[in-house]
Amino acid sequence: MSDPLRLGIAGLGTVGAGVVKIVREKAALLEARGGRPVVITAVSARNRDKDRGVPMDEYDWEDDPVALAGRDDVDVLIELMGGSDGPAKAATETALKSGKDVVTANKAMLAHNGQALAELAEAEGRVLRFEAAVAGGIPIVKTLTEGLAGNDIQRVMGVMNGTCNYILTRMESAGLTYEEAFAEADSLGFLEADPELDVGGIDAGHKLALLASIAYGTQVAFDAVELEGIGQVTIEDIRQAADMGYKIKLLGVSRMTGKGLEQSMSPCLVPASSPLGQLDGGTNMVVVEGDQVGQIVMRGAGAGEGPTASAVLGDVMDIVRGTRLTTFGAPASSLKEVTPARAATPAPYYLRLALADRPGALAKVATVLGEAGISINRMRQYDHVDETAPVLVVTHKTTRAALDRALSALPGTGVVPQPPVALRIEQV
Amino acid sequence: MSDPLRLGIAGLGTVGAGVVKIVREKAALLEARGGRPVVITAVSARNRDKDRGVPMDEYDWEDDPVALAGRDDVDVLIELMGGSDGPAKAATETALKSGKDVVTANKAMLAHNGQALAELAEAEGRVLRFEAAVAGGIPIVKTLTEGLAGNDIQRVMGVMNGTCNYILTRMESAGLTYEEAFAEADSLGFLEADPELDVGGIDAGHKLALLASIAYGTQVAFDAVELEGIGQVTIEDIRQAADMGYKIKLLGVSRMTGKGLEQSMSPCLVPASSPLGQLDGGTNMVVVEGDQVGQIVMRGAGAGEGPTASAVLGDVMDIVRGTRLTTFGAPASSLKEVTPARAATPAPYYLRLALADRPGALAKVATVLGEAGISINRMRQYDHVDETAPVLVVTHKTTRAALDRALSALPGTGVVPQPPVALRIEQV
Repeated sequence: MSDPLRLGIAGLGTVGAGVVKIVREKAALLEARGGRPVVITAVSARNRDKDRGVPMDEYDWEDDPVALAGRDDVDVLIELMGGSDGPAKAATETALKSGKDVVTANKAMLAHNGQALAELAEAEGRVLRFEAAVAGGIPIVKTLTEGLAGNDIQRVMGVMNGTCNYILTRMESAGLTYEEAFAEADSLGFLEADPELDVGGIDAGHKLALLASIAYGTQVAFDAVELEGIGQVTIEDIRQAADMGYKIKLLGVSRMTGKGLEQSMSPCLVPASSPLGQLDGGTNMVVVEGDQVGQIVMRGAGAGEGPTASAVLGDVMDIVRGTRLTTFGAPASSLKEVTPARAATPAPYYLRLALADRPGALAKVATVLGEAGISINRMRQYDHVDETAPVLVVTHKTTRAALDRALSALPGTGVVPQPPVALRIEQV
Repeated sequence: MSDPLRLGIAGLGTVGAGVVKIVREKAALLEARGGRPVVITAVSARNRDKDRGVPMDEYDWEDDPVALAGRDDVDVLIELMGGSDGPAKAATETALKSGKDVVTANKAMLAHNGQALAELAEAEGRVLRFEAAVAGGIPIVKTLTEGLAGNDIQRVMGVMNGTCNYILTRMESAGLTYEEAFAEADSLGFLEADPELDVGGIDAGHKLALLASIAYGTQVAFDAVELEGIGQVTIEDIRQAADMGYKIKLLGVSRMTGKGLEQSMSPCLVPASSPLGQLDGGTNMVVVEGDQVGQIVMRGAGAGEGPTASAVLGDVMDIVRGTRLTTFGAPASSLKEVTPARAATPAPYYLRLALADRPGALAKVATVLGEAGISINRMRQYDHVDETAPVLVVTHKTTRAALDRALSALPGTGVVPQPPVALRIEQV
């Protein structure tokens, strides 16, 4: 029998407990598939006494995750604490520097420190894997890094925050307001402690930035992701989109253009009949387009104990089988710095604005759009609500720059008292 | 610079030419990602003079693929000739025995010889990979072998023959008969030289058998796949299914049960609103259910130059990066022989029968079903066509054995002159 691969697990929340359960209950299966036993030698968490539904007393306990990471009897640190900095990063660095591989589910840590940590891992000859950090149980990191390695990747898109998709789906299916759907998601425990991580698109933006690094051979550039949350999406937007054959999704899109890398995480309209449009509830979906493979769609649970633990185990099984990859699919030193390109690719946009009740008001709006070079595909004005009338516009393809010119000129007309809502229509 | 990985390509049809193009045009990208250059040293095909749209004269030519497989300057044989036996198998064996790894797109060869070839590869310390053999560009072999390695797999389903899905989709969308849709697919060049490989479910059955081996740790058992083609599906079946909220797909299903391994490739009804039900045209989809990950759905092009070459390159990149896996995800010697279980899991069925125009006929059918222990969920009789009236039955869940008892008893009633059509309703 070969020597076992020894895990040290830092962080024993839902996912950590799930990993412990799999390693205990599937020991024979993992050994058959991996060729070596997988065992746990030590664990670490904040609260030693909590009942986690699985016995922990067989494993050495470390109060300090950094001490766990440095133990001689640990081959792989499983980092499940979370947090972009602090103990998670310290433990990861310690593990890599003391000859251990690291498997993490920590998207925030990698979105902010991915380049430095990848460089450290490679300098130390260790691997740093993060399947569980992106889209839960969907093996998208592996697919992009390995399965599609013969492609120039053209676009990566994804619905990667199940909570936002749940809120938008509930608004549509039950006619709830954003506030009502948010409260429902909150009562079901779907929201992060800081809900802005979910509804502000930050969590999903972290994931998008990690995938972009693999797809385009660039350094992780979370700061260059254009973030826009779902808080301004109204039930009227959802209904109007549905009328036109679209659904509204918090959609991540990254694309390498001649002007640089586009990365956005924002509410977008997608065709209702597309796989992304058909994705309801808390499920995740990632769409990858490569020059050879065409479009690959992957769908699955984006969170939860089993799916996330499954992703952690996928990385562990790679290590036990001797698969040793660079963190982002190419040597860290070869990854290029990102030149951000703000939505350079022309797209149609959906606009909602509140128009003052005044003769000639609609003409003024149309004139501003025309002067910005934006041509109108459809326009509808509805009956007045209070002092204003809702106006919906779908433009032909235009650049974001042209759209921004129009948006900044609209207040000057005196007939658009509130900032308009503008959502991109993503062609999928 | 590290030594290049040297490929020998046997078979220069569409896919082979696609692989040559990628290796030529993406040399820098492949080297950046793989850490070593990938080059082609020699090629082999039947016709040396054919124009393949890419220069071949830089590579040594071998008329005999077995000679190619044995060359000292080849590290990896890329086997793209096809055929379950003959030159493909001989070249694969020669390559493995002379210290080369093998990447193949040959589902027939592996469906019939997978166990022996996997044993040979492992005895020789070589790898034998086959991502391109299943579902074209979808990296499902990798996902199942690696990404989901921490799961007990519960069910693998798939639409894995684009031609059949095209025919069924055209019957539905354009109201064509089976014969008309078949002729259309033929005129578009979608059919294999022996169309029975497509419409008889054989090609897709090969793929299902390969995935089952990985999923359940069993020896490939293509002979144990229950095969049923799409030739008996009528436009009426498709319309009736649609009326009830279903679509008809040539669906592969494998499931490990207490009684053994179920494997079937047959026309099934699936909910129209499910991802499988929404899959139109020539696209493929594989659905995997694991005890940890839940349901993972993967969708993409199942054939064609780019997608299949992308899958071949995925395997090549694994080899260049030093990833070395067993063929079916566990040592060949550990794979268990299959105990086949014919559709042991109870399911609802859709039945179509032609009922003789005679008093009490419907009661006789209902009695036979009742005596077989089959309870009826819905039944409809339509107006007479010639001497018979179409009757459609949807049963509650029943075993295939009970259904077979009923089907064999029906002729004895004297009121069912033709063999009934029975299609499983797969819950997804």
